Amino acid sequence: MIISYNGLDHEFDEGVNSLDILGQLDPDARKTALAVRLDGEIAELAAPVSRSCQIVPIFGSDPDGLRILRHSASHVLAQAVKRLRPDAKLAIGPAIDNGFYYDFDTDEPFTPEFLAQVEKEMKHIIGKNSRLERFVLPKEQALELMKDEPYKTELINDLPVDEPISFYRQEGFTDLCAGPHLPNLGRIKAFKITSTAGAYWRGSEKNKMLRRIYATAFASKEELDAYLKQQEEALKRDHNKLGRELEYFTTVDIIGQGLPIILPKGARVIQKLQRWVEDTEQKRGYQLTKTPYFAKRELYRLSGHWDHYRDGMFIMGDPDDESKECFALRPMTCPFQYQVYLNRMRSYRDLPMRLGETSTLFRNEDSGEMHGLIRVRQFTISEGHLVLRPDQLEEEFRQCLELAHEMLDTVGLWEDCSFRFSQWDPANPKNKYEGTKEQWDEAQAVMGRILDHIGLEYTVGIDEAAFYGPKLDIQYKNVFGKEDTIVTIQIDMLLAARYGMEYVDRDGQKKTPYIIHRTSLGCYERTLAYMIEKYAGAMPLWLSPEQVRIMTITDRADDAAYALKAKLETAGINAEVDSRNEKIGFKLREARHDKLPYMVVIGDKEAENGTAAVTKRGTQESIVMSADSFIAQLLKEIECKDRSF
Amino acid sequence: MIISYNGLDHEFDEGVNSLDILGQLDPDARKTALAVRLDGEIAELAAPVSRSCQIVPIFGSDPDGLRILRHSASHVLAQAVKRLRPDAKLAIGPAIDNGFYYDFDTDEPFTPEFLAQVEKEMKHIIGKNSRLERFVLPKEQALELMKDEPYKTELINDLPVDEPISFYRQEGFTDLCAGPHLPNLGRIKAFKITSTAGAYWRGSEKNKMLRRIYATAFASKEELDAYLKQQEEALKRDHNKLGRELEYFTTVDIIGQGLPIILPKGARVIQKLQRWVEDTEQKRGYQLTKTPYFAKRELYRLSGHWDHYRDGMFIMGDPDDESKECFALRPMTCPFQYQVYLNRMRSYRDLPMRLGETSTLFRNEDSGEMHGLIRVRQFTISEGHLVLRPDQLEEEFRQCLELAHEMLDTVGLWEDCSFRFSQWDPANPKNKYEGTKEQWDEAQAVMGRILDHIGLEYTVGIDEAAFYGPKLDIQYKNVFGKEDTIVTIQIDMLLAARYGMEYVDRDGQKKTPYIIHRTSLGCYERTLAYMIEKYAGAMPLWLSPEQVRIMTITDRADDAAYALKAKLETAGINAEVDSRNEKIGFKLREARHDKLPYMVVIGDKEAENGTAAVTKRGTQESIVMSADSFIAQLLKEIECKDRSF
Repeated sequence: MIISYNGLDHEFDEGVNSLDILGQLDPDARKTALAVRLDGEIAELAAPVSRSCQIVPIFGSDPDGLRILRHSASHVLAQAVKRLRPDAKLAIGPAIDNGFYYDFDTDEPFTPEFLAQVEKEMKHIIGKNSRLERFVLPKEQALELMKDEPYKTELINDLPVDEPISFYRQEGFTDLCAGPHLPNLGRIKAFKITSTAGAYWRGSEKNKMLRRIYATAFASKEELDAYLKQQEEALKRDHNKLGRELEYFTTVDIIGQGLPIILPKGARVIQKLQRWVEDTEQKRGYQLTKTPYFAKRELYRLSGHWDHYRDGMFIMGDPDDESKECFALRPMTCPFQYQVYLNRMRSYRDLPMRLGETSTLFRNEDSGEMHGLIRVRQFTISEGHLVLRPDQLEEEFRQCLELAHEMLDTVGLWEDCSFRFSQWDPANPKNKYEGTKEQWDEAQAVMGRILDHIGLEYTVGIDEAAFYGPKLDIQYKNVFGKEDTIVTIQIDMLLAARYGMEYVDRDGQKKTPYIIHRTSLGCYERTLAYMIEKYAGAMPLWLSPEQVRIMTITDRADDAAYALKAKLETAGINAEVDSRNEKIGFKLREARHDKLPYMVVIGDKEAENGTAAVTKRGTQESIVMSADSFIAQLLKEIECKDRSF
Repeated sequence: MIISYNGLDHEFDEGVNSLDILGQLDPDARKTALAVRLDGEIAELAAPVSRSCQIVPIFGSDPDGLRILRHSASHVLAQAVKRLRPDAKLAIGPAIDNGFYYDFDTDEPFTPEFLAQVEKEMKHIIGKNSRLERFVLPKEQALELMKDEPYKTELINDLPVDEPISFYRQEGFTDLCAGPHLPNLGRIKAFKITSTAGAYWRGSEKNKMLRRIYATAFASKEELDAYLKQQEEALKRDHNKLGRELEYFTTVDIIGQGLPIILPKGARVIQKLQRWVEDTEQKRGYQLTKTPYFAKRELYRLSGHWDHYRDGMFIMGDPDDESKECFALRPMTCPFQYQVYLNRMRSYRDLPMRLGETSTLFRNEDSGEMHGLIRVRQFTISEGHLVLRPDQLEEEFRQCLELAHEMLDTVGLWEDCSFRFSQWDPANPKNKYEGTKEQWDEAQAVMGRILDHIGLEYTVGIDEAAFYGPKLDIQYKNVFGKEDTIVTIQIDMLLAARYGMEYVDRDGQKKTPYIIHRTSLGCYERTLAYMIEKYAGAMPLWLSPEQVRIMTITDRADDAAYALKAKLETAGINAEVDSRNEKIGFKLREARHDKLPYMVVIGDKEAENGTAAVTKRGTQESIVMSADSFIAQLLKEIECKDRSF
């Protein structure tokens, strides 16, 4: 057979493996590769090659390579734990973003001392550089082999009948696994256990709570060190830590997980964002609505949420008792805002009708999913629906994207966004999506044409669509690299008909409009979280909940300080006075810790002259100026929404 | 015995009735009185008087007199229906505000034709001027008498064992009734059936739906006519009709009762009110919070809502299954906002801490209670809690009242408000109120002293307190005379300790603060409703959702019209353009119907000169002025929040 490598063809016998091929063509690559791509498809180095193809080695800089390395590392972790605690039962151990984990059923918790022993044992196992061998068994023998591992037994029993049941064996340890894996363990050059957690077997609360060990691994020590350093930096910006320390938000157990309490500083930022979004949308022709947060089950039957999203909703009343009223909190605004359109007959001249709402939504997330302000059970979003004639679709879509661009750019997040064209999966079980293949093909073709016309670079996300249509999802990564959607713009050609939404066209005929579902700044809690992380808590001046802190040197300056505060507030600037009987150095340190944009010191001289000694965030220098010129400077900086300060 | 009347004493034999007494002392009063007060206690005219007392006749101008007259009229209504439809079963028939009703169990609906017959029959019955005679029966005989009336039978069986079972008999008709009643039916000088409705037996959805007839009655034809005229006027202002016609809000069956959809015009008014309230509160030292709309059952256990208010809450999950999470939507903000206080230790210097929130609340009202925007299941309120040192209580209470005064006065509602000092009822079943008699005595004494010190005129409402303390309720009546609370200010000396809220006092000791629960403008939906009624839909300029409508005479003026709109909007003024191909007279009629503050007409001349022909609401005259002077005038009028325009 012919193997092509780096543009050159080479003759090999059928059945040699990639290790041998690379050994001949590129001995360096043979030593450090983690896997190969054969005509683009990932294969293990140790697997025999049975046909002519192009070969490309995969290294640790490739996410696919890292995933394989980490998956093999999870077997090492499992072996180490079993050696130290033989009665622990094995559940599963996949690679994930940034690392891998393994779940164990064991009564005793994992102490730091125990984890240190595990790391030592792992190092020992890797040091032996054992080969990882794949083998396949018929079901009966597979069950026999795993008879002491109840979770593996359950997994084997759940496999489809005709699936080959594969295992990987390294010295002294065998695990049920589909692979792929490294050829030998020595290629794991660096690893580290990072944390532990509880996790339900198969993610369901109905099952037993297992003990999970999180870890990460790399193909070089340098990469691990860089990663740990980056994590350390990320921790400093983590909104879930910093946002609490700076008193933007908190959570309390008695209220519940995923239900953050937005403290005065956070509430002020959200208030400023909300006013700005509502005003900007009004200027763009949006009409504001305010619709109820819950409705009878019947509305969700009509909307499709009852069939497609019931598990994600909070339900009030017995959903199965048709004789009584049953309500549910809304997970989306759509069917509520449509009632505004439906309030009277609309004409083609009324379209596009752009409806905007600062809308609170409720989603019953799993407890394992919740994270700070980013993934919560209640959130408030700049929601909107545009009801359109078909000929208005592209222009309105373009304007929605332009608005999102303007908003995300102003708050400083646009530059780190990526774009995902989220499509349906025709192979997905029927009840996930509404509509026919023809309808989806049309909606996706229209959206594809619009995106290409705009010239946006995007990736395609299969099976990421809404149940009623394709989406453009604007994606953002938090400090730990976890990606979520920040803004979404969706095309919906299906649902208007279901709600009886019509318009009288120029020709007097009643027609069915199209709908764009969209957000402009997305969810306020999430945006606040990303901004805390982006600015490491030093919120841009225009959004700062406390824009100026006025500090007195002695109580002789109190009157002047409060007079300045009143003057600033009349100008719409948020100012506080620190008139405590403390040393000025102490007050300044606190103000710096709070990352305030402006710190003003008033001593006897300033009080006498009606001036202020002003220090801007990030500088040491203090400039004495009059109250009026200070206010003029602030107003100018606030007005232009400078995101660099 | 001695009977005192109009300051003079008269000797009567024991056992004469009030009719005979008045017959001798005041023959006119004997003819027109509806009942009497004997030493202040209401008694029937026909009842024997057995002791010396002062006698005061009650006429139709006295609400207590009207109530008795209407109660007797309800017996007439029942008799008339039974005559026309003998198989109808009788439920209950009380007097209510503005009239009375009677509930019947009957399969056939009440048609307008049938109701006309009922009125005729009632007239006939009243014309006979029969006496209403009271008699009392032992239980067994009472049951025998009512054996064909299943609802009366149920009522008799539910009476306490030692209660005398009284009946009232008029010619040909007997009803189970505690009275009091008129002595004879001829005193009902005027009555009218007003409407019909469905109503569950005993108000519970679990029971059968009965048919209710509403009616009203008066002691003179003139009073009935005046009432009907007033109702007709009220109907024109009724927000539940006008608010829908002017597209401030709507409701739809598929979402549910008591869940209004606020349309763009209503949402804009609420947005303006909300910003004004938040800004005003900020100037008064309030900190804004944003807390979750629901919490775990455990929070409500701590707060007392689980025990005192569970029936009024929307519950998510099984409240009786302790093994699973159970949530409830919040009916009040208190326990959520306290978490903000609890976020760190507070010092005496931090107090008063004034926390404000634009807060959405949820109350599971009975379907019969719901009314437009006034009584709903979800509403948004200018909620707030002040955490105080005891020495700050009076001053902060005074400031809360001052703020409410400022707000209600600005929107024009203050002048029609009344004040109720809502106290507990020590006799109420134990589980309605928290705390001891001593604590209530103290809290009510403090509040009484503050109110008297402020010099506010108030009535006392027994059993109207919150479960945690006394309230000052600011009351407002809708166009139909139905009174509800618009703003409330409450003193709470009980709950802080329960939540572990403390502050470190000047002496270093941890102490428990007091709390004021208060609203400043109250519930936005309710305020909007009252304003629509007060202004008959002609919203004051500063709150108008559409402050200016620009109408073009021909399409040659379109550019000038849109240029003016842009100029107005840049100045923050809400303007719309009507550039339809319609006659200007038609456009003006529509604008008048929409009750817009300013109508602007642009023709060729105005387009050419850059001017506008401006007509102010309520005037016919149109004044031509430049865009700049028009904007200057508007901004001045908006700034001063003139409520007369």
